[in-house]
Amino acid sequence: LASYHVIQWIDGSLEMLDQRVLPHQVVYLQFNTPVEVCGAIRDMVIRGAPAIGLSAAYGMALAAQHSLATDKSEFFRELIAAGKILSSARPTAANLTWAVERILRRLESSKQEPIDRLKVIALDEAKAIDYENEQMNRQMGLHALPLIPQGARIIHHCNTGPLATGAYGTALGVIISAHQHGKQVHVFVDETRPRLQGARLTSWELKQCGIPHSVVVDSASGYLMRTKGINLCLVGCDRIAANGDTANKIGTYNLALVANAHNVPFYVVGPTSTIDMSIPSGDDIPIEERPITEVTQIGDFQITPDDIQVENPAFDVTPARYITGIITDRGIAYPPYKASLSRLMGE
Amino acid sequence: LASYHVIQWIDGSLEMLDQRVLPHQVVYLQFNTPVEVCGAIRDMVIRGAPAIGLSAAYGMALAAQHSLATDKSEFFRELIAAGKILSSARPTAANLTWAVERILRRLESSKQEPIDRLKVIALDEAKAIDYENEQMNRQMGLHALPLIPQGARIIHHCNTGPLATGAYGTALGVIISAHQHGKQVHVFVDETRPRLQGARLTSWELKQCGIPHSVVVDSASGYLMRTKGINLCLVGCDRIAANGDTANKIGTYNLALVANAHNVPFYVVGPTSTIDMSIPSGDDIPIEERPITEVTQIGDFQITPDDIQVENPAFDVTPARYITGIITDRGIAYPPYKASLSRLMGE
Repeated sequence: LASYHVIQWIDGSLEMLDQRVLPHQVVYLQFNTPVEVCGAIRDMVIRGAPAIGLSAAYGMALAAQHSLATDKSEFFRELIAAGKILSSARPTAANLTWAVERILRRLESSKQEPIDRLKVIALDEAKAIDYENEQMNRQMGLHALPLIPQGARIIHHCNTGPLATGAYGTALGVIISAHQHGKQVHVFVDETRPRLQGARLTSWELKQCGIPHSVVVDSASGYLMRTKGINLCLVGCDRIAANGDTANKIGTYNLALVANAHNVPFYVVGPTSTIDMSIPSGDDIPIEERPITEVTQIGDFQITPDDIQVENPAFDVTPARYITGIITDRGIAYPPYKASLSRLMGE
Repeated sequence: LASYHVIQWIDGSLEMLDQRVLPHQVVYLQFNTPVEVCGAIRDMVIRGAPAIGLSAAYGMALAAQHSLATDKSEFFRELIAAGKILSSARPTAANLTWAVERILRRLESSKQEPIDRLKVIALDEAKAIDYENEQMNRQMGLHALPLIPQGARIIHHCNTGPLATGAYGTALGVIISAHQHGKQVHVFVDETRPRLQGARLTSWELKQCGIPHSVVVDSASGYLMRTKGINLCLVGCDRIAANGDTANKIGTYNLALVANAHNVPFYVVGPTSTIDMSIPSGDDIPIEERPITEVTQIGDFQITPDDIQVENPAFDVTPARYITGIITDRGIAYPPYKASLSRLMGE
């Protein structure tokens, strides 16, 4: 499908496509320590909840592979420290700690093995997460097929393609899957200020896939629904609470409210690793505030006057009542979400 | 109040502040013909419905002053041609044709006068529009005072200050008036993509007035209402139909829907010259599509991949049912607007 790779383990080193310079340059960077990977997540070399989960998993593998520990308790101390560093990179996405904890659990359950073997196990588990991640993304695309009408006009927020997930995509994966199954779709790609993931990344990925699309500013969604006949909205997610409240890129909530006012179905798409059953509602999801320069500057271009105050929340929470359905690798959850998500998660 | 002037008649020439290079440069440009003024409106040297009405009025004065016509029918042909050119500059704002027609009506009613006298009359009428405009803006600010609570937290869209109106401002005029009357307000200035009038112009004007404010991306309004306790939204308008439907900068409709979902009062502020009683509803208001480079580039920085499709509607229409009140120079209209606007307009 894609002629680029997003994240790849090569000879004991982690290679990632630098998403900060897309779509103008395709540059791959190498990372060798958990601290470097943490920096890459924080600086948004890689972003998107599933993709940062994946990079954290490989970050743990780097910690294991390059460990010089000679006794096992030292090895485990190093890995737990690496997990703390990686988990601290960004606060909102559930997949980050999910991936770190999964690697640690796997190592814990193999703690009778020698260190050399544990190093292999950590890498194997990261690769398993990678493989399962791609399978889960494909499953979401298949589950969603009946929801996409022939000729669908879709509004999509942020970036949720291979760049955001490592492979295939969540919301964009659903669109790619529909396209591959012969449905003619047109995607209205909102640019997604401040970091412009829609304008920079989603349009680039859709172009590579040959899927027709138009870029629009974020605030045009109401205009589009009133005048262009939009069939549905598709968005990804960074964390889903047990009641279905969903944290996702800033602007998701506005899009959901606008869709609700027009009776346009609004679907959240994400792997079950994004569902955090330990959090009862969206009010408990931490929201990251990012640097103000994301708002005041684009490239080298200074937009605003100097010395002004800016608020730059990276995410917002969409209450479950505005979400038509949550498309996961294990099927589609519908309201009431407390029951349907519990069922999906086998709890 | 302001240490800058937006539009000024100086020695037979029209001087305008170039709003395209604000806030980084303060540059004044001179215009001498209606064609030049039309270009300035189209290229957005000046923008904002009342301000482009004002520049069209002075554009007519330029046509009259510099006319070489020796007989009156030629003079009137020239003025009517100038009016057509100026009216064609941008399609959505009502004030443009309103101003042109007012100058033409004034000349028509004085057609027994000699050409030299008609030249003076055209300029006097433009100056009268300018003077009345400022008075109307001040009136709006006073009418709105009881609506602004002490300590109000206000979301404001686009730019509606002196830069948009020639003097004082409409929605921003209300804020400036509240500030001058001792109300402590905090303004959340949405950046207003694609042309960033909020981030570039409104923040610059508020800074000059010493009014506390924060710049946010457009799609953060729902997040702000959920988490920051917003008291009201204030926006300007480009054309108000007889039923209260309001065309304004793209994103106004989204903000109105988001405000409605949170029961946050949403006020439109504009002079009666923006009310077009000849248009029954917003469906009949022409919406301008602007160049795609407004979306794909910021400054010299190219955001998107090359050769992509873009939709760039400059305005949207907010249905009257989402508007709490329309603040005009003659008082505040409340629903049902058909009746209240008719009363205000004396029809």
